[in-house]
Amino acid sequence: MTARRWSRRDLLKVAAIGGGSLALGGFTLRQVHNMLGRDFQPARAKRYLDAIEASPNPETLPNIVIILCDDLGVGDVDSPELDLPNVERMAAEGTRLTDFYASASVCSPSRAGLLTGRYPVRTLISSPLLSTHNPLNPVMDLLGRYSYNVRGIPRDEVLLPEVLGRRGYRTGLVGKWHLGGTDGFLPNDRGFDSFYGALWSNDDTPYAIYRDREVVVPAPANQDVLTRDFTLAAVEFIRANKDHPFLLYLAHAMPHFPEHASAAFQGKSGAGLYGDAVEEIDWSVGQIFDTLDQLGLAKKTLVVLSSDNGPWMQGNPGYVRGRKLQWFEGGFRVPFLARWPGVIPASVTRQGMSVNFDLFVTCLQLSGVPLPQDRIIDGKDILPLLKGDAPSPHDSFVYYDVRTPVAVRYQHWKYVRRSLTDIASFWPLKQGPFLFDLETDPNESYSLLEEQPERTAQLASMLDAFEADMRANLRGWL
Amino acid sequence: MTARRWSRRDLLKVAAIGGGSLALGGFTLRQVHNMLGRDFQPARAKRYLDAIEASPNPETLPNIVIILCDDLGVGDVDSPELDLPNVERMAAEGTRLTDFYASASVCSPSRAGLLTGRYPVRTLISSPLLSTHNPLNPVMDLLGRYSYNVRGIPRDEVLLPEVLGRRGYRTGLVGKWHLGGTDGFLPNDRGFDSFYGALWSNDDTPYAIYRDREVVVPAPANQDVLTRDFTLAAVEFIRANKDHPFLLYLAHAMPHFPEHASAAFQGKSGAGLYGDAVEEIDWSVGQIFDTLDQLGLAKKTLVVLSSDNGPWMQGNPGYVRGRKLQWFEGGFRVPFLARWPGVIPASVTRQGMSVNFDLFVTCLQLSGVPLPQDRIIDGKDILPLLKGDAPSPHDSFVYYDVRTPVAVRYQHWKYVRRSLTDIASFWPLKQGPFLFDLETDPNESYSLLEEQPERTAQLASMLDAFEADMRANLRGWL
Repeated sequence: MTARRWSRRDLLKVAAIGGGSLALGGFTLRQVHNMLGRDFQPARAKRYLDAIEASPNPETLPNIVIILCDDLGVGDVDSPELDLPNVERMAAEGTRLTDFYASASVCSPSRAGLLTGRYPVRTLISSPLLSTHNPLNPVMDLLGRYSYNVRGIPRDEVLLPEVLGRRGYRTGLVGKWHLGGTDGFLPNDRGFDSFYGALWSNDDTPYAIYRDREVVVPAPANQDVLTRDFTLAAVEFIRANKDHPFLLYLAHAMPHFPEHASAAFQGKSGAGLYGDAVEEIDWSVGQIFDTLDQLGLAKKTLVVLSSDNGPWMQGNPGYVRGRKLQWFEGGFRVPFLARWPGVIPASVTRQGMSVNFDLFVTCLQLSGVPLPQDRIIDGKDILPLLKGDAPSPHDSFVYYDVRTPVAVRYQHWKYVRRSLTDIASFWPLKQGPFLFDLETDPNESYSLLEEQPERTAQLASMLDAFEADMRANLRGWL
Repeated sequence: MTARRWSRRDLLKVAAIGGGSLALGGFTLRQVHNMLGRDFQPARAKRYLDAIEASPNPETLPNIVIILCDDLGVGDVDSPELDLPNVERMAAEGTRLTDFYASASVCSPSRAGLLTGRYPVRTLISSPLLSTHNPLNPVMDLLGRYSYNVRGIPRDEVLLPEVLGRRGYRTGLVGKWHLGGTDGFLPNDRGFDSFYGALWSNDDTPYAIYRDREVVVPAPANQDVLTRDFTLAAVEFIRANKDHPFLLYLAHAMPHFPEHASAAFQGKSGAGLYGDAVEEIDWSVGQIFDTLDQLGLAKKTLVVLSSDNGPWMQGNPGYVRGRKLQWFEGGFRVPFLARWPGVIPASVTRQGMSVNFDLFVTCLQLSGVPLPQDRIIDGKDILPLLKGDAPSPHDSFVYYDVRTPVAVRYQHWKYVRRSLTDIASFWPLKQGPFLFDLETDPNESYSLLEEQPERTAQLASMLDAFEADMRANLRGWL
């Protein structure tokens, strides 16, 4: 073929068609940049991880158990309708944080925040990942709004199990991964020595159960036994690693829709399948405690119980407004209990603001690993807060809607930049922004915007500055 | 011009274009029927009204004052953040109903239910009417879903003021009408001797204030003074009619968005403009009571305080789920207080289910007017409930989304046929239906659908039967 010289007209055509397609697809330049891969810097992660020294005294390292429920409401853990003796025991033997936030109000991003110590948007995981075979994937990609077109958490992100593994921890994921489903992005690729669980959400298909890289329960897996089987696998992991420091990330699939419970729990709660699922999780918490107690590990193990976001169509957000996927408190505020006898005080409730991305930093601190210096880490060590030695290390937190920062909390003030009417309504008058005082108005009912203009301006400019920083350096590379 | 014979081809063309347009506009045959006017039977209303006899002893008729707030939440009236001494006084001197429902979760339909004693959908008012000049009107009509293409409550509906007027009452509307804005559909056309207020919602334009048929405050009216001016007009109406039985329908524009309060109340509540607006309404309640007391009318006047639907973007739904426009409790459950010294017990709270369309029937009963016999009236007399003489006359209530019955309450059970995901999500798995026990689970958190199959089937078939009846005879003509 003869090489053909492109005329200016041809180039304009290509630019118009290309630009049009991108615009139609809703892609931003940043996304195109990401798609072209220029923003991915896996060498950074490797350099940091390679520099981590294995602990010379691994026996001094505390074990870490993170029990993460899926869509459990902050009101579920003390609902009078549910019988949760082990959660009560955990509260009695440990400390509860009332103002603990998920880093996102939806699954995958919240988990990305938890495992990286960073605002999820930095990891490019800003919406739930869909199963590789989900026919909605192309739609989601086209919509653009819902996806950065990444199919797993990028390899330049440093994950908690990768760090702790280098330090000498045995690392196990039992339950829901939801941060990638293709080679290179699987749990065993991302720092977990062992994996027993599911790659996707339990409302996605195909829903199979894996042991490491192999399917052991083909799709569709019977979800009734999930909580039981995950618990048994978690107990097995603890027993197998009792002589090493270990990180157990027990990420229950429940009580996420569709709710399931094993036969012994079906109908037990009297609060429906959702209630049954939560009571079975309570049983699971008890199994973990019993195992730790039997092995004499209680005093050297930090156990944390939380949720990835607020409750969805069922579940109880308590006396806060909204639910999963929303930027009112009910979307982001999640249960948080921590038990570590002898280190964290028993029967204490604290209000200091904290976020699930703090757990990354707290765990690194506990294991004596320095934070990565080549990237912004948004989390802080909350052990002093849990011990009662210090106030919250945060004075602010930013609430995201997918990729857009839409609200900020500063101390007990919350500024919401936009309301649902921005998206859903074609009504010409927009409601919002709002300024809420979460101390006096936990249900976000009464906006103080007009009577607190200075406070409003302060929070609005905090949010603007945050957004500008994010735009300038989304990935937070230093 | 020569008459032209239409060929079969021409007729097919017209049919295709016509049918296509109707299909595109989303109109149902029922709607086309309505548009063509065949379902409107104003002669029915005239026959009924003409047969009402003026009371031979008008001095024995009790006065009726209905104070209807706009978007006031069931949690607002006992919010610790608000100072509402007159609402408290009303509760102390009267009876409160905890399970009182608006007949719709949005303005116009709820008001249509209140004034006709019927499910709003029967009146063809199933969504908020837009101002005559609102450029969104054609869009709303085209969308079909949002409108029966009626621009005011049909003249075949019988309205409370029309009935009471024939009986000898002086009837006054002060505040928001929202049931029609063209000649023949104005408050003075529909039974009110006097009108001072607004035809539309305060977030619609143009927003002018009328005295009867004349604009007295041109648009845009200063909304800061609305509650004050409506209160003054209401007091003036009471004074002017102190020697006659009267119906005062005081339909405040507040605390509907955009919230306003007069200078004396701005900043007073410490709970923002919404809180200020509610505290000014409380002041207004006090003015009404003071006026009745001064005129010696307290013992012969039933005063009712309620709201047209739950709170919207601000306001407090209390510990129930959802807000305005939703079919969870927070959309439909509204505050209800009734005071009538000597008739209705003081300081009593009752749980019997009741609906704002009951007020039509209750008022007819009080004034000795028989109900229309030519149409289905869904309301019941709730005076016995208020007096404590009888349980609730209702054992069920159906929740509408625009024109679709989506949920039913039967005793303390609530069956929700669809969830938000039916509308908003393209996700293949649908959540719902749900069965909630409102007695143990007021926040609609835990569906009992799977463990109460018989109860579920019972309520589902109640809802199906209700819908079938409505389809067969929407207008309820007998």
